[in-house]
Amino acid sequence: MTKRPVILVSNDDGINAQGIQFLTEVMREFGEVYVVGPHDHQSGMSHALTFMVPLRAKCLKDTPDLHIYSLNGTPVDCVKFGLDQLVPDHKADLIVSGINHGSNSANSSIYSGTASCAREGAVNGIPSIAFSSLDFSEKINFEPYRPFIKKIVQVILNQGLEEHVFLNVNFPKPDKEIKGMRVCHLTKGLWIERFVAEKDPRNSTCYWLTGEYHNAEPDNEDSDEWCLAHNYVAVVPIKIEDTDEKTKMALSVLNI
Amino acid sequence: MTKRPVILVSNDDGINAQGIQFLTEVMREFGEVYVVGPHDHQSGMSHALTFMVPLRAKCLKDTPDLHIYSLNGTPVDCVKFGLDQLVPDHKADLIVSGINHGSNSANSSIYSGTASCAREGAVNGIPSIAFSSLDFSEKINFEPYRPFIKKIVQVILNQGLEEHVFLNVNFPKPDKEIKGMRVCHLTKGLWIERFVAEKDPRNSTCYWLTGEYHNAEPDNEDSDEWCLAHNYVAVVPIKIEDTDEKTKMALSVLNI
Repeated sequence: MTKRPVILVSNDDGINAQGIQFLTEVMREFGEVYVVGPHDHQSGMSHALTFMVPLRAKCLKDTPDLHIYSLNGTPVDCVKFGLDQLVPDHKADLIVSGINHGSNSANSSIYSGTASCAREGAVNGIPSIAFSSLDFSEKINFEPYRPFIKKIVQVILNQGLEEHVFLNVNFPKPDKEIKGMRVCHLTKGLWIERFVAEKDPRNSTCYWLTGEYHNAEPDNEDSDEWCLAHNYVAVVPIKIEDTDEKTKMALSVLNI
Repeated sequence: MTKRPVILVSNDDGINAQGIQFLTEVMREFGEVYVVGPHDHQSGMSHALTFMVPLRAKCLKDTPDLHIYSLNGTPVDCVKFGLDQLVPDHKADLIVSGINHGSNSANSSIYSGTASCAREGAVNGIPSIAFSSLDFSEKINFEPYRPFIKKIVQVILNQGLEEHVFLNVNFPKPDKEIKGMRVCHLTKGLWIERFVAEKDPRNSTCYWLTGEYHNAEPDNEDSDEWCLAHNYVAVVPIKIEDTDEKTKMALSVLNI
């Protein structure tokens, strides 16, 4: 009998979010599942990690096929903890994160803790996939996403991923019929951010971050925003940041 | 008279760190300087941002040429706040961060708050440079770095940077003679991380993140780790993450 794949699951909405519970259930069809989620919400934590204070872990379930832990850390801490402390021989065959309650399309992937779990997998040479839904609500019917998740996971377990590449998957809201799935590119655009100044109840000024996404290519059918707006699942392979060779040549004047 | 460049300065060691004070002083030779640093240490915060709680700002200095603020947020919050609330017309000609007390070479750039300030600049189309020193101590003689910082800033103010590219600059420790400066690539390698379990004074288990960098190309003279080990300033142009076109083709089976 071939050994079942070892799958590490994490998220940034916290261990009690419906999204990670649904994703865990789907992953159990594929292998032995280790889940490590933050104790609570860690949205917008990007690739942050914790080293100035120690972490504390809670074991919530420990059966031969399913191991669930929560941690008082960031999403990336959860992945690192799972790889170092939980999976056999520090090795996972696949890392999945989500399903995030809220979109992580276009350059939101840079700020997202969900995407960061998958990026951390890619840094470690493990095929990794981040899943997010455009639906922000806490209670979502995730069922329509199941066949797409299964298809993606089957393909990636089968053919792997290029080094330093992870998949960023976004689902349209599940209330309309999903038309299909497209492998596409991160939309070019920009968050225009404004801080809204308010007085707190003690009359002290505080600033809330607000933002609006400006899509630079709204009609591009190959962009993830277009796919999502037209009810397709958007799958973007993201290459993590690396040296820009062209600029390296252009700056040779700095070799002194 | 030509308008002097508007320069935004931030860091992740906090507004009181010697590194940001030195960098601010050097930047004043080039233009009108806006400084926004976190109230306190924000190391390892990567590209995290704050939107679940409001931010509070302190104005520490406000003169025609120099404006200094601190914020109870992440390094990226500081850059966003500076761009939205402080610089004229939301426009900066240059963003610099650091000088970080500690190295951010190789793939540490992914985890670093210092690098993230520059990445946030690149996201916004602003030429941006992260500066870090291999010296972790709080009191460093930064003077030997001055001519290199000035050279880099002169060149970048003059010729700009490619879209979505920022510079990640690391300095060797200043106690030995610096041999020169090299534009090079992010070293290929991996942090092997281990959590050390300890008992706290209440006999509860907690985990400290520790790590060791494994350099996959220690003899490559074009890598930033090699340059730093041989007392050169290492300048790496980093392209922020984007779609991997090759994988996009390889996954066409997912277009359903």
